[in-house]
Amino acid sequence: MTFDLLIHNGTLVTVNPDFEIIENGFVGINDRLIMALGSARNQKLPEARKTMDAMGGIIMPGLVNTHTHLPMTLFRGLADDLPLMDWLNNHIFPAEAKRINPASAKAGALLGCAEMLLSGTTTCCDGYFHEDSVTQAILESGMRGVAGQGVIDFPAPGVPDPSENIQAATDFVLKTKGVSGRLHPSIFCHSPYTCSKHTLKKAKEAAIRLGVLFQIHLAETRGEVEQIQAEHQVSPTRYLSDLGLLDQNTLLIHAVWVDENDIELIKKSQASISVNTQSNMKLASGIAPVAKFLEAGIPVGLGTDGCASNNDLDLFREMDMTAKLHKVHAMDPTVLDAKTVLKMATINGAKALGLDHEIGSMEPGKQADILIIDTRKPHLTPLYHPVSHLVYAASGSDVRHVFVAGKRIVKDYTLTTLDLDEVMDGIKKMVVM
Amino acid sequence: MTFDLLIHNGTLVTVNPDFEIIENGFVGINDRLIMALGSARNQKLPEARKTMDAMGGIIMPGLVNTHTHLPMTLFRGLADDLPLMDWLNNHIFPAEAKRINPASAKAGALLGCAEMLLSGTTTCCDGYFHEDSVTQAILESGMRGVAGQGVIDFPAPGVPDPSENIQAATDFVLKTKGVSGRLHPSIFCHSPYTCSKHTLKKAKEAAIRLGVLFQIHLAETRGEVEQIQAEHQVSPTRYLSDLGLLDQNTLLIHAVWVDENDIELIKKSQASISVNTQSNMKLASGIAPVAKFLEAGIPVGLGTDGCASNNDLDLFREMDMTAKLHKVHAMDPTVLDAKTVLKMATINGAKALGLDHEIGSMEPGKQADILIIDTRKPHLTPLYHPVSHLVYAASGSDVRHVFVAGKRIVKDYTLTTLDLDEVMDGIKKMVVM
Repeated sequence: MTFDLLIHNGTLVTVNPDFEIIENGFVGINDRLIMALGSARNQKLPEARKTMDAMGGIIMPGLVNTHTHLPMTLFRGLADDLPLMDWLNNHIFPAEAKRINPASAKAGALLGCAEMLLSGTTTCCDGYFHEDSVTQAILESGMRGVAGQGVIDFPAPGVPDPSENIQAATDFVLKTKGVSGRLHPSIFCHSPYTCSKHTLKKAKEAAIRLGVLFQIHLAETRGEVEQIQAEHQVSPTRYLSDLGLLDQNTLLIHAVWVDENDIELIKKSQASISVNTQSNMKLASGIAPVAKFLEAGIPVGLGTDGCASNNDLDLFREMDMTAKLHKVHAMDPTVLDAKTVLKMATINGAKALGLDHEIGSMEPGKQADILIIDTRKPHLTPLYHPVSHLVYAASGSDVRHVFVAGKRIVKDYTLTTLDLDEVMDGIKKMVVM
Repeated sequence: MTFDLLIHNGTLVTVNPDFEIIENGFVGINDRLIMALGSARNQKLPEARKTMDAMGGIIMPGLVNTHTHLPMTLFRGLADDLPLMDWLNNHIFPAEAKRINPASAKAGALLGCAEMLLSGTTTCCDGYFHEDSVTQAILESGMRGVAGQGVIDFPAPGVPDPSENIQAATDFVLKTKGVSGRLHPSIFCHSPYTCSKHTLKKAKEAAIRLGVLFQIHLAETRGEVEQIQAEHQVSPTRYLSDLGLLDQNTLLIHAVWVDENDIELIKKSQASISVNTQSNMKLASGIAPVAKFLEAGIPVGLGTDGCASNNDLDLFREMDMTAKLHKVHAMDPTVLDAKTVLKMATINGAKALGLDHEIGSMEPGKQADILIIDTRKPHLTPLYHPVSHLVYAASGSDVRHVFVAGKRIVKDYTLTTLDLDEVMDGIKKMVVM
């Protein structure tokens, strides 16, 4: 077989079920798909119309960011180091009300896609308003994404009348379905404390009817737990469970304040969790019991959350901080080892989004979403174990080439799909104070 | 006055006593020193023989890494995710015994200097063995450093007979003093649990006699506290205090397990602290009470520790993780704000090393140790507050130009003083398994 593209001369970190690491490996790609991979040590390289020399670097699956609010790149660093309610009510909400419109949402999302692709994220799971604008950015940038139109019981950008929120989300899904193999519409229901019981149920019913992922913030802060407990006499997790919201097409975002009973409910329901370590640290929301999620066998992915609370979209940094935070929190250096954390940022993130049949690892038949990491850098020298470097030493700026669905989107640290200067200048126009 | 060098067209983050931030600023440099700085908004730019256009980026003082073991870059990623004693006894100590010699120590230190300079650190405070090799690397790389020859009551690389450890350290200091304005010799006494009472006292006496900084690991782990308590019936801090080891020329490294009484002792003694957030997280040693150190007015700098427990030397990442860890640990997002953390990585680090009269901020009369950060990147767009980006979004790879003592050491992301390929290839030869 002659491949369309052959990537060779690098160490494959496959993240396949055996977590195979193959030195001097190759990956053969036809059209959008990985057709074959293996070691070139004892065989001639397969034929291919194009080749890509990884120059001794690491060849790995693209990273999966399971929680973003892409247009919020507009508010990166706008306000930091503030009490949560002050930050939200006096800075973020007013900025959103004043500045978010279809054009600015698209500009912000383009910036987010550019940042993610350049730092090795090939798939994101977004939830916001004007999600039409986000899908345009995802499609134009060449990345892969789950895009969830927001549902909330307050006037929101693009949905001034909350009574139309389910319809708006439904319309978005119907309009977006089938547009591209890289785009998966979804419904993003904001949270148990910003949506009524009626809205929560209707939103999940719509997601079931439409056959799409249902995303919801859950148990992010202690205050939320107290509020739901006071109003409904149960934990937020139990509240959603009782409403029938938890199933294998539900992605629970944050899940910081969940106890053993809550974890058992999540496990039984087959719902997934998006862990947002840095955002939870920076806003002082708390530390999710990630080791317990993993023990329970719940699919757990990593998310950066929006740029206003992180303040970047670099999943390499997210891996590093997640591994280290949980070690010191548990006072046990063996907790969340590098392999476990890399899986969270790839195959398990894909599983959390219901996309592990097509992305999250390098295996024949899967989409060719592939990174080449340049390890010829002082901070990646020497190299004993590639997975250690990916988690504890690399950063997004070490990603040299990026392929999504077999197409080269980043070439030698440069985006091929977008004019980055135009994207950055576009943002500056949107945020003039 | 005509300057030797004028840096202009950037935002100055001075870190001076008023923490002035000056848009469209300039810095005038003659020989090694900053002569003037200010805003170019309402005045013609001063004359200069050379100019450097910061292209709208951030102009800031070089970062100060208050704790490194530079030759340990050789062991970056050698072993991770292991219980502390397994990691030390079965991996790090044997690797040191087998591989550390004058040549490998120099190779490792050169790699460390290259990594630090490329990521914006212009001064480090090192402690290791074969420290002669480290000083050669510091001098050749063009960076500034405090170099401490190790003292420990075990056979060590270059000091096989522990009874000669004080003499070896003394000889090192005498040989190194006055060699270069960029180099400050020091004595690095390993710890209260690896040195006898006699060794601790003699090492500090030597440091006092020689007029140099005395560095010592202190209270890194709970196990150390238990051991010292069992052997001496006091806390490690009280133990050192009673021995007369704490004064304004003492740098205490880690200080994770210190209580209110210990902090009071440190405060009264005017000793300084090096906080090593990521190393303490990764080894699950604990979380130092940094906010209490700051409240007490103790000079606190940031350190990366050795590469075997971090696994990089990027102080931007260290700032980010320090700010975020302490917020979630205190469950208060206002703790360790960006400004506080930036000061730890600059002026307060300099103060901790006794060098704040010459480095740590951009002020007339200080050494021209200056970074230019390229903010024309997606993850640094938009830019509302430069200090926020420096702590929460930037990484070492955003450092475009670096000056040390007025000399350009990094030009457009490339070292001018070392052949980086040669440095990296040198390491690979040293670590062949």
